[in-house]
Amino acid sequence: MGSIEAMAARCRNWGRWGADDVLGTLNFIDDAKRAQAAGIVRSGVVFSLAQAFDTNGPQNGWRRRTNPVHTMTDTGLEAEFGDQGFPHGFGGSDDVIAMPLQCSTQWDGLGHIFDRGHAWNGRRAGAVVTSDGDQVTGIQTAAAHLVGRGVLLDVGRALQEQLGLEHPELPDGFAITPEHLEATIAAQGATAAVGRGDILLVRTGQYARTRRDGWGHYAGGPAPGLSFTTAPWLHEKEVAAVATDTWGFEVRPNEFDDAFQPLHQIVIPNMGLFIGEMWALDDLAEHCAADGRYEFLLSAPPLPITGAVGSPLNPVALK
Amino acid sequence: MGSIEAMAARCRNWGRWGADDVLGTLNFIDDAKRAQAAGIVRSGVVFSLAQAFDTNGPQNGWRRRTNPVHTMTDTGLEAEFGDQGFPHGFGGSDDVIAMPLQCSTQWDGLGHIFDRGHAWNGRRAGAVVTSDGDQVTGIQTAAAHLVGRGVLLDVGRALQEQLGLEHPELPDGFAITPEHLEATIAAQGATAAVGRGDILLVRTGQYARTRRDGWGHYAGGPAPGLSFTTAPWLHEKEVAAVATDTWGFEVRPNEFDDAFQPLHQIVIPNMGLFIGEMWALDDLAEHCAADGRYEFLLSAPPLPITGAVGSPLNPVALK
Amino acid sequence: MGSIEAMAARCRNWGRWGADDVLGTLNFIDDAKRAQAAGIVRSGVVFSLAQAFDTNGPQNGWRRRTNPVHTMTDTGLEAEFGDQGFPHGFGGSDDVIAMPLQCSTQWDGLGHIFDRGHAWNGRRAGAVVTSDGDQVTGIQTAAAHLVGRGVLLDVGRALQEQLGLEHPELPDGFAITPEHLEATIAAQGATAAVGRGDILLVRTGQYARTRRDGWGHYAGGPAPGLSFTTAPWLHEKEVAAVATDTWGFEVRPNEFDDAFQPLHQIVIPNMGLFIGEMWALDDLAEHCAADGRYEFLLSAPPLPITGAVGSPLNPVALK
Amino acid sequence: MGSIEAMAARCRNWGRWGADDVLGTLNFIDDAKRAQAAGIVRSGVVFSLAQAFDTNGPQNGWRRRTNPVHTMTDTGLEAEFGDQGFPHGFGGSDDVIAMPLQCSTQWDGLGHIFDRGHAWNGRRAGAVVTSDGDQVTGIQTAAAHLVGRGVLLDVGRALQEQLGLEHPELPDGFAITPEHLEATIAAQGATAAVGRGDILLVRTGQYARTRRDGWGHYAGGPAPGLSFTTAPWLHEKEVAAVATDTWGFEVRPNEFDDAFQPLHQIVIPNMGLFIGEMWALDDLAEHCAADGRYEFLLSAPPLPITGAVGSPLNPVALK
Repeated sequence: MGSIEAMAARCRNWGRWGADDVLGTLNFIDDAKRAQAAGIVRSGVVFSLAQAFDTNGPQNGWRRRTNPVHTMTDTGLEAEFGDQGFPHGFGGSDDVIAMPLQCSTQWDGLGHIFDRGHAWNGRRAGAVVTSDGDQVTGIQTAAAHLVGRGVLLDVGRALQEQLGLEHPELPDGFAITPEHLEATIAAQGATAAVGRGDILLVRTGQYARTRRDGWGHYAGGPAPGLSFTTAPWLHEKEVAAVATDTWGFEVRPNEFDDAFQPLHQIVIPNMGLFIGEMWALDDLAEHCAADGRYEFLLSAPPLPITGAVGSPLNPVALK
Repeated sequence: MGSIEAMAARCRNWGRWGADDVLGTLNFIDDAKRAQAAGIVRSGVVFSLAQAFDTNGPQNGWRRRTNPVHTMTDTGLEAEFGDQGFPHGFGGSDDVIAMPLQCSTQWDGLGHIFDRGHAWNGRRAGAVVTSDGDQVTGIQTAAAHLVGRGVLLDVGRALQEQLGLEHPELPDGFAITPEHLEATIAAQGATAAVGRGDILLVRTGQYARTRRDGWGHYAGGPAPGLSFTTAPWLHEKEVAAVATDTWGFEVRPNEFDDAFQPLHQIVIPNMGLFIGEMWALDDLAEHCAADGRYEFLLSAPPLPITGAVGSPLNPVALK
Repeated sequence: MGSIEAMAARCRNWGRWGADDVLGTLNFIDDAKRAQAAGIVRSGVVFSLAQAFDTNGPQNGWRRRTNPVHTMTDTGLEAEFGDQGFPHGFGGSDDVIAMPLQCSTQWDGLGHIFDRGHAWNGRRAGAVVTSDGDQVTGIQTAAAHLVGRGVLLDVGRALQEQLGLEHPELPDGFAITPEHLEATIAAQGATAAVGRGDILLVRTGQYARTRRDGWGHYAGGPAPGLSFTTAPWLHEKEVAAVATDTWGFEVRPNEFDDAFQPLHQIVIPNMGLFIGEMWALDDLAEHCAADGRYEFLLSAPPLPITGAVGSPLNPVALK
Repeated sequence: MGSIEAMAARCRNWGRWGADDVLGTLNFIDDAKRAQAAGIVRSGVVFSLAQAFDTNGPQNGWRRRTNPVHTMTDTGLEAEFGDQGFPHGFGGSDDVIAMPLQCSTQWDGLGHIFDRGHAWNGRRAGAVVTSDGDQVTGIQTAAAHLVGRGVLLDVGRALQEQLGLEHPELPDGFAITPEHLEATIAAQGATAAVGRGDILLVRTGQYARTRRDGWGHYAGGPAPGLSFTTAPWLHEKEVAAVATDTWGFEVRPNEFDDAFQPLHQIVIPNMGLFIGEMWALDDLAEHCAADGRYEFLLSAPPLPITGAVGSPLNPVALK
């Protein structure tokens, strides 16, 4: 608890962008940053960084998080064999979805996590997020802000040899420290430099493992991830957002006894950092490893669901 | 019916990209096109082109299309006043959504519309879209393809003076013809040139009107939109996709007696064209009118919902 | 406000059945009452008192209350024309629903309404109903209790002549007072006697009007209903529950300026009374008018949704 | 396959109640039967036979069947600590649910299962159940019909001694034959007689086992249940409906190689029998064992969801 308090105090950005701020570290991205990001593009190759939104997903019902349920309200069978009631041979299909906003590739909004009853910028949690949703920092406020320079730190690959791994995939429970991040940057070279306003993508390799071995306990179970000790590093680098290929961003089991996602508790309500989870980074990582360029234009806007504390999305990286 | 048959035959792309094709006109976008699009970016200003995903939306229940229902499974009130069961002062909120995929800003997938029992590329409708979703052209197949050069044709503004309109907004029922599109391009200048692989955004101004006057019959009622006669123009221009700021893309009421969305019936199953609806183009349009540049990098990937025949999204334009 | 306070004090049952009580006035129903109710049955004719659960319902989105969205996950078209993957000619269809629990015929649970921050039996509202649902008086606690003697008071019919109504339907805005209830009982005769543990059904006739004229503003608009002044009458009669054929049980507009459902505020949290809304009473009423018998065995158990503050149901009356 | 064909032919009721029939074996229940059922009631003790509708349920996502997701749209926390916008201290909570109709205690409607492309009464499956739901035999057609005499056959208890079971619970995979049913009736005595129009409840004891040991593979895994050979017995007895305490009514694994629910295929589309699954029969069974009376008034109306092929419900037994 003392660690939490000290770290929160060290990394806290409350008031940094005014009392009314709703963007947190997204304030680090400006027009110049986006123009710079566009300038990175060379060949025009593009990667979708979204996992599937599929009923055969990893969710297990914890916290009422199911996999998405997608159903059709009209299909081609009606169009071909039935009578849909439309004239001149017109036929159509239509569909609906029910899903938790955290069921697959997503951004955590700033109202997703609280620290001792407080939300981002020091607001009272109960004054921000009610049953009507996030009244202040709803994800729609970030609709136009998550576009900029992306940098991939492929830690799973960078540490493969040193750790003697069969695949470029960190083992479950592996805590990525600032030293590991720095070593990865060093190994990857100049295009992997991380600075103010960058959107950082950290690949552990766990998602690749689930593609080979099945979901297992991907949702909430043991996983590689960022160490609690990376909070000051993220703070000092002034990154705009960080996303990983795991369910929970930080290492699991967590590094303290009787802890639950302590890094979240620091970086979301205190630092104002946007966190992405369950991203699919493997195809992009292969390409970066092949051409040695780890930066790209990242377009990752959330779906502007009014009052949401998170959002599904399909991020794309353009190189 | 004769008109439909003739137009479908004229604009049909079946087999053009092979028997297994699932992308239709998205095949017109290649790496070079995307690289060119990135090269358009100057200042780095960005616009979200999504309408809100909000319970106070335009849907009225037609075809079981409701507005999204977003609910919280945990809130800041629990975190502040209750006991969420987490250690060390950690608190959280979480949420779910239930919505039709066509409830707000969206892409129509290639399985959304059929022509006399046939889907894109000549496949049988009933073999493509069943209760399990689109088995062939599910929207996830387009996950990495809707990024490229966007061009805004602000027809509402271009025709304002000629039509004597108080606002730069076409009246409901106004059919935009190829001549109107060409006149808009001519009025807007060189950056508005439309060609192979471009993603075309056509602003009618109707959405701006709803911002002032309320939703009214936005969902399915009278609206400005593309004329049936634009099909050959879109075909010849080899655009990759077209989106508008209206519910239904084409003019309503439709131009034939006893008709329902005949232009859809041509362009989706026959041409293989991706159609965007309910986009928010007004802020972008203001900026384009101000700086005279109507082209931009458009990043508009769908949410990869397995088997979906459409997808909500938040498109962004980077200039 | 003074009226509310005084009436609440007058009708309050807090502590009457112990500090742990979760049933309120359902305590008035005992085995003997249910045995008596079964003894009423003569011919065995049965009536469903549920309105449809249908996408073409009255809900308009207020408070995120939509009409139910029922979708199929498999259909007979797949079974007949496709391949569902089952052996030996087996075929199946399956379905899902998304709906507000108050979208159609329903019981209000005891956690549905609060009086100045308090729930039934004097508990703190925030300690009872959280984002996890009703932790104390969830509707599942009443799963086996809403079976007993039902009595129909067909006020619309009883007052038709006196009010000079074309149909046996009270006009919107008509407040049913204790005098109207007594007059109805007197007109209907001995089988309409109301006493301890009875489940009272009050027919206004408004639902019949919507069957003829369309839903209109059934959900929340002007309606006949119980007057605020009926609270003491209901209290003294010791009825177990009361249901009506309207959206909101009490007269609308409400009888005070700037008021919202004041009778609810008295009877649910203070009296502990179960309220039914949107019941379909017309067929039963016709039969009662014809045979002169207004009592029956009523079986109206809620769906035991854990933690729900209300429940859809299909009540049946057996005569 | 030959067995299926022969059994279907033997038990087929097509045309028995006319070409337009939508009720199947519910035709066996008439007013006299319901009056007789009411006459059974003695003490007035009542039992809810529903399992919980709870997010911690047995469903595992097979066929997109999740457990119910119940969420609040307003809570007591808002009422106590926030501002809900209501006058005079009024506060409220409200909720919504999303669930498969087969997620917990349910009736299978007549459109739920098909035999070689045919639905009940010989109709084409694709003409009955489309994406719009069951156009002919939607569960709402049975809204007033599932009330009558219930008979419990507690096979788990009747065979306990003979099978040397520690608990009155049949082992998974145990097939209940007509002989077992007759032996149970004989052991239970006169009140267990089964005849025309009765609603038969068959208790295996498997649900009781899950209450002790956890859900395990309750949804679709090995289970005791009715043997395929009971079809003629059910047919000859002219029962109106049959419900069990298991997920799937019939024994699992099924009795043929490469089979899927063959008894369903006989009794639903061919016989027109209503099947109940996932009922909670243990409390009722205890009471019946204690007083030796196995018959009761059963009120088990489905929720009248337009076009549904099944329905959640809370059945009640009144003794």
